[in-house]
Amino acid sequence: MILPGLFRGSKMDFAITLDQHSTTSLHKQLYDELRQAILTGRLKPGERVPSTRTLSQSLGVSRTTVTQSYEQLLSEGYLRASTGSGTFVGCELPDELLKSKPVETFRAAEMRPDDKRQIELSSYGASITDSAPFEPPEPETPINFKCGRPALEEFPLQQWRRLILKHYRANDHSLLDYADGSQGYEPLREAIVGYLRHARAVTCAADQVVIVNGAQQALDLIAKLLIDRGASVAIEDPGYLGARRVFLAQGAELLPAPVDESGIIVDALTSKTFLKSKGGLKLVYVTPSHQFPTGATLPLPRRLDLLAWAEKTGVMIIEDDYDSEFRYGSRPIPALQGLANGDSVIYFGTFSKVLFPALRVGYLVAPPSLARVFARAKWLADRQTPMIEQRVLADFIKEGHLERHLRRMRTLYDKRRQALVRALETHFGDRVTILGENAGMSLMIRLRGRLDDDEVTRRARLAGVGLVSARHYYLVESRRDEFLLGYAGLSDRRIQEGVRRLAKILK
Amino acid sequence: MILPGLFRGSKMDFAITLDQHSTTSLHKQLYDELRQAILTGRLKPGERVPSTRTLSQSLGVSRTTVTQSYEQLLSEGYLRASTGSGTFVGCELPDELLKSKPVETFRAAEMRPDDKRQIELSSYGASITDSAPFEPPEPETPINFKCGRPALEEFPLQQWRRLILKHYRANDHSLLDYADGSQGYEPLREAIVGYLRHARAVTCAADQVVIVNGAQQALDLIAKLLIDRGASVAIEDPGYLGARRVFLAQGAELLPAPVDESGIIVDALTSKTFLKSKGGLKLVYVTPSHQFPTGATLPLPRRLDLLAWAEKTGVMIIEDDYDSEFRYGSRPIPALQGLANGDSVIYFGTFSKVLFPALRVGYLVAPPSLARVFARAKWLADRQTPMIEQRVLADFIKEGHLERHLRRMRTLYDKRRQALVRALETHFGDRVTILGENAGMSLMIRLRGRLDDDEVTRRARLAGVGLVSARHYYLVESRRDEFLLGYAGLSDRRIQEGVRRLAKILK
Repeated sequence: MILPGLFRGSKMDFAITLDQHSTTSLHKQLYDELRQAILTGRLKPGERVPSTRTLSQSLGVSRTTVTQSYEQLLSEGYLRASTGSGTFVGCELPDELLKSKPVETFRAAEMRPDDKRQIELSSYGASITDSAPFEPPEPETPINFKCGRPALEEFPLQQWRRLILKHYRANDHSLLDYADGSQGYEPLREAIVGYLRHARAVTCAADQVVIVNGAQQALDLIAKLLIDRGASVAIEDPGYLGARRVFLAQGAELLPAPVDESGIIVDALTSKTFLKSKGGLKLVYVTPSHQFPTGATLPLPRRLDLLAWAEKTGVMIIEDDYDSEFRYGSRPIPALQGLANGDSVIYFGTFSKVLFPALRVGYLVAPPSLARVFARAKWLADRQTPMIEQRVLADFIKEGHLERHLRRMRTLYDKRRQALVRALETHFGDRVTILGENAGMSLMIRLRGRLDDDEVTRRARLAGVGLVSARHYYLVESRRDEFLLGYAGLSDRRIQEGVRRLAKILK
Repeated sequence: MILPGLFRGSKMDFAITLDQHSTTSLHKQLYDELRQAILTGRLKPGERVPSTRTLSQSLGVSRTTVTQSYEQLLSEGYLRASTGSGTFVGCELPDELLKSKPVETFRAAEMRPDDKRQIELSSYGASITDSAPFEPPEPETPINFKCGRPALEEFPLQQWRRLILKHYRANDHSLLDYADGSQGYEPLREAIVGYLRHARAVTCAADQVVIVNGAQQALDLIAKLLIDRGASVAIEDPGYLGARRVFLAQGAELLPAPVDESGIIVDALTSKTFLKSKGGLKLVYVTPSHQFPTGATLPLPRRLDLLAWAEKTGVMIIEDDYDSEFRYGSRPIPALQGLANGDSVIYFGTFSKVLFPALRVGYLVAPPSLARVFARAKWLADRQTPMIEQRVLADFIKEGHLERHLRRMRTLYDKRRQALVRALETHFGDRVTILGENAGMSLMIRLRGRLDDDEVTRRARLAGVGLVSARHYYLVESRRDEFLLGYAGLSDRRIQEGVRRLAKILK
């Protein structure tokens, strides 16, 4: 029931409407209305307000309701009481505020330009206000060759759910509390050490591991701790946008390091461009297991060359081992980290591809001398990664579910990759070149034809097929005939149908 | 069963020990041993290795085992095969690496100083390598008056668990995938808008809200986006260390703003120190609901003054509303954000205190013109907050559990606060002054006596009582007689016993 009433002010009357069926109490509603009236200037500083009895009568509510509202407004300084002479609007409210426009809910999009005051951003802020997206546009399509999307329907949700319940049922309240430190749950760090040693030949102790919220947070911490404005960073070209953007925002000068069919060309790093760069070369960022986006695997001799170069120059290697777990045919090549002698590699990986992206758990392996400062940077960034995920994941690894899931996915993705390669060969014949190693969750192709990449992706989208031009990943020279096809999340049938449609529209 | 065997090299023999009962396969073990031998120089580049038949005999393993190891080493370039003449150690391995010390697992703590190479950190990195902790030491004690620890055993875990199961059971795989954007789950942002409007008089639309991993990430994003090295930040003194440290790391010059029993002294901000600061004053950081650590609540007239000052000077107000939900007696004063006219306030809060710290979910309300750049900074920081927590929390709010839990905790903490105040008065009488408003989860006291804060906390610890000296929170002048007592997580009995023990040791 709505109660329309009149507030008879000493200077001005205005309507007050209270809703008896609202979940908000009547006195809170009345408080809100009166406060609004004061802030918007309908009630002026020093103005006398009706007595609680008068107002309760004119609004048709109990006197207690009015009293409660008045008391709240008194305690907050909107009103002041003067013994014997009544209650008044506070005088200490500055004029500026009272003249201001009513406080109303508005949507950001509806802001008029002249409502905005000029807020000066930091260099970091200014560098990310451009409109360039951090990821190339990937509109949802019925058949979407989206990169980095695992076969989510294959994830053993039951096991995961069981472990979550186990931890919540344990009624152990330390599950809910702040962690002891920012570095991450120790049993999880230990499980990761075992996993990395076994699967990636990474050589580290648990106190070198920092649990992060996925690979992107690893990059953010690395950029913060090692990059000052003006420093140089060598980065694979083409390469991963998330890394490029975080180094740029941090103020780095990016030096594109060329990539060939074996990955980063280490010899190129010895040129003057890199070693005599103005701000000093601090980092080289690499994806040696499965170069993004070309899919090349850095062979052992180049790995050793890169390590020797880093050792000599003092440049830190940033090893992003993002989907190293998926290799079909040959066994994975050991990580640079495990081949390194000493402190020249910061290694990181993520469970986003191996398990699922929304989990937001990754790991960074710091050189021993840097482990503490990484843990401190993690504290400043967000104190710690959520605890329940860390505990569940530690169990998931220890109980062997990770290895099992990986084995299953390796077989599945291998099959899907083969299906994609066969379909491409069937439908495109010698008009397609397949690049990269027999690994990962996506592959890069070159298409011979008269259409450029924009036209190809546009037509594909119209035919319900999503694929991404590799052009977005280049810093210097970008081809217009290279495309990325993620296959991990698509069934064989959809892969075949997708390629068939592609071939049809590109005829 | 352990198989000790001899590798008869053409230049040198060495022992190889394989373990048949290991979970690592024999061929992987053999591969590891040989790879290690090559990397440490026991096997030299160009050196011929025994045939698979010979080696399998001398090691007592099957020929297949040896063949598998060799194939892996060949595929990785450690070995090369020459048709007809045998298998050799690869020649492309650079000398430097081969001369290096063996790759061994070591613990960070065992590193010898001369093993460390000098890694040059950024200014950010260098500024956080000091030994000062981000939080004052709070060793676990039987009765720990720890600040910011809610009554975790009162959290409605059953409801929470039920909602988690509901989402995992839905078999909706979008739960596992990357979110559409970095800003956070939209239904959660909408639920937060409703909650904040109702509980805190915050006026915003869902597209101004960015979901963050707790208050600390809000601070990190604010510092990144608004602070360049050398800029000035006005910060409450005493004040919250997490904010101070993140602004310092970002290179800000901190200008301490004095605090009295009503919170930050706004008049002080008009002095030359603030307005003529070298790098330009960019931000003022405040905790108006319940000043940390003094517990003062900024009264309405000061709020309006602060807003008017910010409007005039163009300085951005950072409003940390960390435990505003807990007010006993009077109703909470509306947030600065809701009183502000336009873009002068960045508001943030967290569910760490209201629900539980390990959840790591908070919210930042940006002025409309800054919402997009905050979302982009969040992407670069860690792409998104984990999804399951966001969905469960959205339901938890919509189903009314948050309000219910808050009401219960408000009553409980009120009782606990009263118990603490009573106990202090009983045991200390006029030797104690209780500071701050009737609000929050902790209170600050002044103790009259001849012992300084170090001695008080030391003796308290010995008696099994944890409390923190407020000295850690001061930038300029620090008293040695102020202490913080968090009471939210302690039962009445423990509170009484804790105060009794304190009084006894301080007699």
